[in-house]
Amino acid sequence: MAQDPLYGYFTAVAGQDGQISADELQRCLTQSGIAGSYQPFSLDTCRLMITMLDRDMSGSMGFQEFKELWQALNGWKSTFASYDRDRSGTVEAQELQQALVTMGYNLSPNALNGIIRRYSVSGRIPFDEFIGCSVRLRCLTDQFQRRDTSRSGHASFHYDDFIQVTMSV
Amino acid sequence: MAQDPLYGYFTAVAGQDGQISADELQRCLTQSGIAGSYQPFSLDTCRLMITMLDRDMSGSMGFQEFKELWQALNGWKSTFASYDRDRSGTVEAQELQQALVTMGYNLSPNALNGIIRRYSVSGRIPFDEFIGCSVRLRCLTDQFQRRDTSRSGHASFHYDDFIQVTMSV
Repeated sequence: MAQDPLYGYFTAVAGQDGQISADELQRCLTQSGIAGSYQPFSLDTCRLMITMLDRDMSGSMGFQEFKELWQALNGWKSTFASYDRDRSGTVEAQELQQALVTMGYNLSPNALNGIIRRYSVSGRIPFDEFIGCSVRLRCLTDQFQRRDTSRSGHASFHYDDFIQVTMSV
Repeated sequence: MAQDPLYGYFTAVAGQDGQISADELQRCLTQSGIAGSYQPFSLDTCRLMITMLDRDMSGSMGFQEFKELWQALNGWKSTFASYDRDRSGTVEAQELQQALVTMGYNLSPNALNGIIRRYSVSGRIPFDEFIGCSVRLRCLTDQFQRRDTSRSGHASFHYDDFIQVTMSV
């Protein structure tokens, strides 16, 4: 069987334990060139990526999670690129809104405006912020749905659980 | 009446509209010297500070909110300084934990560990991250308590509301 090329990127930075931390993930993603001509991911965004898939809460990532991340990143990158037609590395607020609809999120104007305010830099959304936004939105939506077992669109949180879910991403 | 010295810092950056945006707040706080020998606040942290007090959701801050922020920042800075005894500009994970208890938060080990993972840089918590953590924790706790009207420690969120609360900070 041909070796998975992703495995090469991964093992180049993973130590003996086969796990990578946020700064190793940052190096790994930079070396893989996944960001293309866009700015490399910030350490903050890499920390978020680890949290998104960190089921054992270890703060690090194994190869299976890395493959899963890789797939998600490629999807988000294509979505971003389809809106960034002039290849400026940024999209407009309204384009972020459309991208989120494309990604399947059904949010009110108030929620969308809150997201835009949070992720805009000088009125536009850079690639790294777009990815950070996508990771957090997916994490928070997953956590919400786990608590909304009847799919009613409502979920109840204990204070400690709410802080755990929201402060770790 | 003697002029409030804070008003000088504020008007030096506020335009004709008497409101400051995140990058103006960053300049304002840097010029005021509130961070002392610590690193100036990042733009991300300044955006969070605006969101914390932005009752009209305008994305900017008036003088009354600025005064309120100033007071909160001074409190958090004293708390941080009391743990940063060697004046390294960072505190240990365990000290962040103690600081949060001092600030009145009653959180489980799991919630505390999530916070520590999120805000540590190379195993320690820098001043700017500590302030970011304090601002977010206060915002999220305020929002939770507004929905926990009976003070039962439980609150129910509609999905859209949950995303609005958690994605804007």
